[in-house]
Amino acid sequence: MTVTAPKGFNAAGVAAGLKSSGDPDVALVLNTGPDDVAAAVFTTNRFPAAPVIWSRQVLAGQRCRAVVLNSGGANACTGPEGFADTHTTAEHVAEELGLGAIDVAVASTGLIGMRLPMDLLTAGVTAAAQALSEDGGAEAARAIMTTDSVPKTTIQQRGGPDAGWSIGGMAKGAGMLAPSLATMLVVLTTDATADPDVLQRALQTATAASFERVDSDGCLSTNDTVIVLANGASGVTPTEEQLTEALAAAATDLAMQLLADAEGSTKDIAITVRNAATVDDALTAGRACARNNLLKTALFGNDPNWGRVLAAIGTTDAAFEADQVDVTINGVTVCRGGSIGDPREGVDLTGRAITIDVDLKAGIEEATIWTNDLSIAYVHENSAYST
Amino acid sequence: MTVTAPKGFNAAGVAAGLKSSGDPDVALVLNTGPDDVAAAVFTTNRFPAAPVIWSRQVLAGQRCRAVVLNSGGANACTGPEGFADTHTTAEHVAEELGLGAIDVAVASTGLIGMRLPMDLLTAGVTAAAQALSEDGGAEAARAIMTTDSVPKTTIQQRGGPDAGWSIGGMAKGAGMLAPSLATMLVVLTTDATADPDVLQRALQTATAASFERVDSDGCLSTNDTVIVLANGASGVTPTEEQLTEALAAAATDLAMQLLADAEGSTKDIAITVRNAATVDDALTAGRACARNNLLKTALFGNDPNWGRVLAAIGTTDAAFEADQVDVTINGVTVCRGGSIGDPREGVDLTGRAITIDVDLKAGIEEATIWTNDLSIAYVHENSAYST
Repeated sequence: MTVTAPKGFNAAGVAAGLKSSGDPDVALVLNTGPDDVAAAVFTTNRFPAAPVIWSRQVLAGQRCRAVVLNSGGANACTGPEGFADTHTTAEHVAEELGLGAIDVAVASTGLIGMRLPMDLLTAGVTAAAQALSEDGGAEAARAIMTTDSVPKTTIQQRGGPDAGWSIGGMAKGAGMLAPSLATMLVVLTTDATADPDVLQRALQTATAASFERVDSDGCLSTNDTVIVLANGASGVTPTEEQLTEALAAAATDLAMQLLADAEGSTKDIAITVRNAATVDDALTAGRACARNNLLKTALFGNDPNWGRVLAAIGTTDAAFEADQVDVTINGVTVCRGGSIGDPREGVDLTGRAITIDVDLKAGIEEATIWTNDLSIAYVHENSAYST
Repeated sequence: MTVTAPKGFNAAGVAAGLKSSGDPDVALVLNTGPDDVAAAVFTTNRFPAAPVIWSRQVLAGQRCRAVVLNSGGANACTGPEGFADTHTTAEHVAEELGLGAIDVAVASTGLIGMRLPMDLLTAGVTAAAQALSEDGGAEAARAIMTTDSVPKTTIQQRGGPDAGWSIGGMAKGAGMLAPSLATMLVVLTTDATADPDVLQRALQTATAASFERVDSDGCLSTNDTVIVLANGASGVTPTEEQLTEALAAAATDLAMQLLADAEGSTKDIAITVRNAATVDDALTAGRACARNNLLKTALFGNDPNWGRVLAAIGTTDAAFEADQVDVTINGVTVCRGGSIGDPREGVDLTGRAITIDVDLKAGIEEATIWTNDLSIAYVHENSAYST
C-alpha cells in the first residue's frame, strides 16, 4: 500500500520531536528512478507557506527526486527566515541522499506563524534517510498526520500481467480547496513512464474532479500541496487517458478518506446540483450549500431543513427560477418548485451518508461537491488547536 | 422606548399561539399620521419570502400605514399559497384598522418551508388591533423575538425643545446581510416630516453602514426587512443630513444589540481593515475573516491565531503584498509584514470584545465588519432549531 507500492520508491516516517505527542512527524519519499518526472498542484492562497514557495521552484523543472514532509509546524507566515529553514531542510535531504537541493520538494503542516525547531527537524531528516525502505510507505503516511485519526493511503493497479503499472498515494487533511484544518498534503507515486506535460495535465484533471470538490469547511490553507512522482520503473507508458483515469481514481479514493475523517464530522454530505446551465453554476450552488453554517448545523442535528438549502443557493448568481427548484434529501423530494414538497418526516438522516440533490431546471450540466456537517466536535477541536 | 416613542404611533404585541412556548408572536405597528411616508430595505436572497414579495409592492408606493409582524413561521418557500396567506393577513389588518390592504406591510420570521396557521394568526391580528396603544412598543418588540434572549429597541431624540423630533425602533435577529438565524426584522418610526425619496436614501445609507456590516455567520435570510415609517407628527422637517445621521445612529444601536445577542456567541468581534486600496477591498477582506470558521472557532477558544487571519484574507482579491500585511489583535501586533510579530502570549482574549486590525498598506481606505465567534452553543442552537 501507499507510496511504496509502485516499483522504485522508498519511504520512511520517523519521530523527530516536532509533535509534543512523540508521534512520527517527519516523512521522506525517495524516487530511485530511472525517471524523475514530477508534477504538482499547490494552494492558491496568497500567503503561500515557505515550503510551497520552495517546492514551486523545484517543480518548475518538472523533475523531483525526493519529497520531505513534516507535521508539527506549517512554516507559513514566517518570512525570509522561514524560507531559509525550508531551503536548509531541502539541502540537508540532498546531502543525505546524494542529490541536489533542487531535486527535493518540501511540504509542511501544522500551526501557522511559528518557526520550525530546525535542530530537531534536521536530526529527523537524517534518521528518515537512514530508515528509507521499500516497506516505509505506511510509516510515512503516519508521519504526516495532524488531527487525522487514521492514515489515508491508496493503491491503483492497471495493465495486464505483462504490462502492469501502478499508482500509490498518501494524504492528510480534508480537501484541496477547502481543508478542514491546516492543510491537505498528498504524495502520489507511479512506476509508469510519463511525459512531464502529460503528467501535469493528468494531475490537474484528477485534482479538479476530486480534491477540489471536497469543501469541508470552506477554508483554504496556506500549505496545500499535491505532488506526483513518476519513475517509469514498470517500463509501461500508459496513454494520457489511462494515466488520467488512474490518477483520478487514486485522488478520489484519498479525497473520500479525507472527507470521512474530517475533524469532528458526523456526516459525509454529497451535494449534487443537476440541470444547471453550466458546470460553474452547479459548482457555485453546491459550494454555497457546503459553506452554509446553518445548513451544516441542521444536518448535524439530523434535521432535513431544506429551506436552508434554498436560502444558500438564493445568495448565488447561478441561473434558475425560484419557483422551479426541487430539493431531494436522501431520496425524499422535500421541496418542489421552490415550495413545500413531500413531508420532511420521511427523511432518514441517522446514517453518516447524506445526499442532497438540487434540481435547478436551467440546463443539462451537473456537479457534486462533498462536505461535512458542522458539529460540536468541530468547534471543540478547532478552538483548542493551538492552545 | 421602541417604536411608540415618537409621536403618532401605536403598537401591540400579543400571543396568538404560533409559538409553542405561548410567548407573544404577533406584533402590530400603526402610524396614526398625519403623513404616511415610508421606506424599506429588503433581503437580496433570490428566494424572498411571501411577506417580502408583498411588502415590496406596498413600499413601491413609498407609503405605509401599518406593519404586522409575526414570529413562529417565516412563510418562506411556501409558493402561491404562502403568498395568499400574506395577502389575507394584510387584508385582515386593513379591515380591523379601516385601511386598504396596500397600506399594510407584512414581515415574518421563523422556520422556512411551513405554512402559517392562518386561523391562529388572524385571531392574533384581531387581538393585536384591539390592544394597540401608545405604550405598546415594548410588547411589540417582545413579539418579534425568535431565538433572541432580549428584545432590541432604540430611541434617538434630536432637535431643541421647540423643534424636537425622534426616531424609535425595534429589531430581532443578527444582521441584515448575514443574520445569525432565520431573519433580521427591523421597524423604525419617526415623527419627523420627510420626503419619500430623502427617507429612502437616508435609510439605505444608514443600513449600509450598520446592519449590512454585521456578518454574524455569513448566511443571508429569505425574510430580512428594515422598514421606516415617517408621520411628520412633530412638525419638524430635518435636513437629509440630520435624518441620515439619526437613522444611522438608531440602526447602529440596534445592530450592536443584535451582535451582542447573536445565537450562542461568546465574543463580539470588530474586524477593521485599514489602508486598503478601496472600501470594497476593506469590506472583502473583513468579510473573509468574518466568515472563516477556523478563525471564529479559534477566537471562541481565546486563541489569537493570526495565521488564520492571513489565510482568510489570502483567499481574496483585495490589493496587498503578502510581505506587507500587519495584524493587531486586541492591541498586540502579532503579525508584522506577513510574518511573526509580537508574542501571541501578550494577547488577552478573555473578555467579550475583540478587535482585529488588519493593515493592508495598499491605500487609505478602511472599513469595519462586526461578527461573532463560532461556539459550541451556536452549533447546538442551530442543530436543534426545527426539530
